[in-house]
Amino acid sequence: MADYTLHCFAQSGNSYKPALMLALCGADWEPRFVEFFKGASRTPEYRALNVMGEVPLLEHAGHKLSQSGVILDYLAEALGTYGPSNDIERREILRWTLFDNHKFTSYTATLRYLRCYVPNTDPAVTAMFRTRAEAAWKVLDDHLTGREWVAARRPTIADFSLAGYVYWPDEIGVDWKDYPHIRDWAARIAALPGWKHPYDLMPGHPLAGWNIPGEK
Amino acid sequence: MADYTLHCFAQSGNSYKPALMLALCGADWEPRFVEFFKGASRTPEYRALNVMGEVPLLEHAGHKLSQSGVILDYLAEALGTYGPSNDIERREILRWTLFDNHKFTSYTATLRYLRCYVPNTDPAVTAMFRTRAEAAWKVLDDHLTGREWVAARRPTIADFSLAGYVYWPDEIGVDWKDYPHIRDWAARIAALPGWKHPYDLMPGHPLAGWNIPGEK
Repeated sequence: MADYTLHCFAQSGNSYKPALMLALCGADWEPRFVEFFKGASRTPEYRALNVMGEVPLLEHAGHKLSQSGVILDYLAEALGTYGPSNDIERREILRWTLFDNHKFTSYTATLRYLRCYVPNTDPAVTAMFRTRAEAAWKVLDDHLTGREWVAARRPTIADFSLAGYVYWPDEIGVDWKDYPHIRDWAARIAALPGWKHPYDLMPGHPLAGWNIPGEK
Repeated sequence: MADYTLHCFAQSGNSYKPALMLALCGADWEPRFVEFFKGASRTPEYRALNVMGEVPLLEHAGHKLSQSGVILDYLAEALGTYGPSNDIERREILRWTLFDNHKFTSYTATLRYLRCYVPNTDPAVTAMFRTRAEAAWKVLDDHLTGREWVAARRPTIADFSLAGYVYWPDEIGVDWKDYPHIRDWAARIAALPGWKHPYDLMPGHPLAGWNIPGEK
């Protein structure tokens, strides 16, 4: 059995955040496939593991951890890298992790979900999430102007949190050339030794019948 | 000049989180009114203070802090209370603060915003946020079954984060009797010495022309 077990599935950008961290660190880990699209995360058994009913979930040394931001924080400490080196960095990492959870990932992930997985979504709903996602992309693009990394002069877990969904531009319906600082930052992350695309790192892709229908 | 200056406005539940913390701690603080509804948080001057363009913003001892979760973390340390007492509590506080930012506050605040401040919102949009908010309320209600406080055996900043919007049931369009553990937990917070309703703690209410139109 591996040191770290990550309950995850390929289409989950929130799972990708800790999976990427584990891959970049060369940790001894294994994915445990959650059949999200068959309702596995909504069962009483899964709720008993995590009342929030969310993926990912990390098991390590008897601990069960949920929320990608908590898992990243835990891994930074356990693996001794990509974490803060002082209190100011710690709060800057927290600030961008919260912004990511509240807006950047939240709106981006929902936009992608509506585009790719929900048939016949009301166009007004998709449009609202697109508007909000674009505003969040603009904030990060502005922040990355003249910066290589989000929260320090080196990559940190804040970068990996924000990177959860950025490698699916077709599914989101964005061309990152319109946000050139995000494009360049995503390429810097992808150049780190050990990087893999989410679909190459976690199980469950392709989904039967999956396609990219786009927006109406 | 007070020790702490909080840029805020009465209708902002995200501002209420640190305002409540400051009030409960009896800190020497003053609000600085942000005329959000006149676009004050979207000006270049405000963006220079906070690239995220968000309220609240805390100024203290030369620091400028944004993101309510970061401000709460900072205040717990500076004021020496309502914070974690060990690493497990720290991660449990972080877990619920992230859930709050991602889902509980996010969907609740947007639902209220659409109901109270946006004329002629498409009913499909409001319905989507209501469905998501209700799912988040259910998660917290389940978690609070048999618990007095969210993340420890005493109130912490995780409680104050999640409480940001709960004292506006009419504006949200909820009767907390349908979520009795949330109702009782909100009453426990309201019984803490120094507690005030957001409209009694921050400037700018009532807004001219403000009402509660409800949902279509």
